[in-house]
Amino acid sequence: MQITRDNLDDFATGATVLGTGGGGDPYLGKLMAHQAIEEHGPVDLIDPTEVPDDALVIPSAMLGAPTVMVEKLPQGGEALAAFEALETHLGQEAYATMSIEAGGLNSTIPIAVAAALNLPLVDADGMGRAFPEVQMVTFTLGGISAAPMSIADEKGNTLFLDTVDNQYAESFARVTSIEMGGACMIGTYALTGAQIREHAILNSLSLAHDIGKSIRTAQQHSRDPVESVLDRTDGYELFEGKLIDVQRRTEGGFAVGEAILDGVSECDGRTLTLDFQNENLVARDSAHGVIASVPDLITVVDAETGDPVTTEGLKYGHRVRVIGMPCSPKWRTDEGLSLVGPDYFGYSIDYRPIEELQEALND
Amino acid sequence: MQITRDNLDDFATGATVLGTGGGGDPYLGKLMAHQAIEEHGPVDLIDPTEVPDDALVIPSAMLGAPTVMVEKLPQGGEALAAFEALETHLGQEAYATMSIEAGGLNSTIPIAVAAALNLPLVDADGMGRAFPEVQMVTFTLGGISAAPMSIADEKGNTLFLDTVDNQYAESFARVTSIEMGGACMIGTYALTGAQIREHAILNSLSLAHDIGKSIRTAQQHSRDPVESVLDRTDGYELFEGKLIDVQRRTEGGFAVGEAILDGVSECDGRTLTLDFQNENLVARDSAHGVIASVPDLITVVDAETGDPVTTEGLKYGHRVRVIGMPCSPKWRTDEGLSLVGPDYFGYSIDYRPIEELQEALND
Repeated sequence: MQITRDNLDDFATGATVLGTGGGGDPYLGKLMAHQAIEEHGPVDLIDPTEVPDDALVIPSAMLGAPTVMVEKLPQGGEALAAFEALETHLGQEAYATMSIEAGGLNSTIPIAVAAALNLPLVDADGMGRAFPEVQMVTFTLGGISAAPMSIADEKGNTLFLDTVDNQYAESFARVTSIEMGGACMIGTYALTGAQIREHAILNSLSLAHDIGKSIRTAQQHSRDPVESVLDRTDGYELFEGKLIDVQRRTEGGFAVGEAILDGVSECDGRTLTLDFQNENLVARDSAHGVIASVPDLITVVDAETGDPVTTEGLKYGHRVRVIGMPCSPKWRTDEGLSLVGPDYFGYSIDYRPIEELQEALND
Repeated sequence: MQITRDNLDDFATGATVLGTGGGGDPYLGKLMAHQAIEEHGPVDLIDPTEVPDDALVIPSAMLGAPTVMVEKLPQGGEALAAFEALETHLGQEAYATMSIEAGGLNSTIPIAVAAALNLPLVDADGMGRAFPEVQMVTFTLGGISAAPMSIADEKGNTLFLDTVDNQYAESFARVTSIEMGGACMIGTYALTGAQIREHAILNSLSLAHDIGKSIRTAQQHSRDPVESVLDRTDGYELFEGKLIDVQRRTEGGFAVGEAILDGVSECDGRTLTLDFQNENLVARDSAHGVIASVPDLITVVDAETGDPVTTEGLKYGHRVRVIGMPCSPKWRTDEGLSLVGPDYFGYSIDYRPIEELQEALND
């Protein structure tokens, strides 16, 4: 399929659902992509099966604090600088670019890069959602190195990292992004078509588009948009309620906090506590305990329109519904859980797949 | 001349004099150099005139907090990794290596690199003393870029910086050094023989050796070691006294503080206040006001032996003499003073060359 000015909104809406409250505002990525498509024409979203085995794909991403990204919209030049620096370094022309996240703004920024460079975008990513750190991709589980990583800012500075593991790539890139004013563009996880098919999460960009489109058409035809999302993501409606408290603080560059929902209709008499660190991480029901946790996806949507709400958008009094969706099976391995499970984020809870938790609720 | 196990001590002593109290403990660099010379043989210290016009010289240095360097002595491998990474990046074999500082441990670390790689060391540096930041070299005044800069740690991580100016190189390298555990090895300011002759401070390593040797021989022959240093540096004895107070704190990675000396013999009845930020920066006499300031060199030595004392070595009750030495004329230009003058370090005093201040004292 092609990504055009007309369906960009659907991509961005779906990416916000998959962003589970974080990953930066996809609106920014959409703005960049919109401008690039205006200027250079639409982008081909190609199926991972179409990428030759040894073709080089260079993912493109923004790295930094979401709050800074809002104020420091990339000029575009730094995204291309990071991409092309890595291409030159590898001495091979890229066949395509790719998103490392299906959620948040890093799902849509590569659309802008693809348009500007007249390259296709591979319909896959490394998370199937949004996560805050560089090493938190399924590529890491596949032994693929984040290095060589290129980092560029709008002033013309470029860095290359050649690190012994992906955690170091995160550490060096993070402090560099701060020195670059809080955000920067990176080229990382260069991989081949064969590696994408084995280690990436496939068709996640078209899933984002599909989710966004289904919300829009449900709204237009007065159907329940939440049902259409659950249908496409094998998800569950976890809770419906009114936001009665939202606490936020910044800790180590993360927007950390919790939101408390007072149940309405079927959830009357119960409360839901939602813990977030950029992304929504744990949902606790007053009657049932933990009903969903990272790496499964937890997304808050407007109770009426079904439009996804980021953690920054959570407002007192807002009536919302909370959706839980199963993550990729790649994240449910021991290795996957040690990389992005509740433990890593500081929660001493045993991860249980959302399907299992739902089954227990219905027993 | 050759640098051998036998004359290394003289280099290190002289480098401590030129280190003006900071630059890290040359003893560490000496340890590394000693070990490398044991293993690989002595090092040729070559005159800058011997380097062909377009031969490539890659300076080698350690970057980090002096206190960390004491605990994190380089293994050697990271110094070679940084050097060779830059060589590979430039696609040219290095003709020689060089020190970017004539004072402190970065004067002696390149001796170890030269020994391990069987390369000559050029008798020149970029400061003629020690300074705390990457951009504070005469190369910057000559428009020579610190980039491409390579950074390596003992774990096998390597970074490359390609920055728009040398101040950015400092910023990115500084935060990287912190992520690398507080210190790292760098390859930077790759330059040609012609550039060295125009922009470096020449014969500063042999000056360090000469100073160290003169202190040692004066001690052996019961002559005044301070006189021998003044003789070789066009310096002045600024003060003699007992340390009656030393204040130290850490501010932004610098060891900041002041030492107060109570005058003895000719200085009886006066006090001297010595401000330092890693290096000694300003000397104020209670009777005469500022009698020396950065970029001129201020070094404290033991009153009897003439052995130089670093700011970390300043101890209550110690009887010392304070020496002032003129800096390179390159630092006394407007551009030089804006890079390393009192203003940059936060002192609102007008720099006056030490010769002028001494002349005023004698009027």
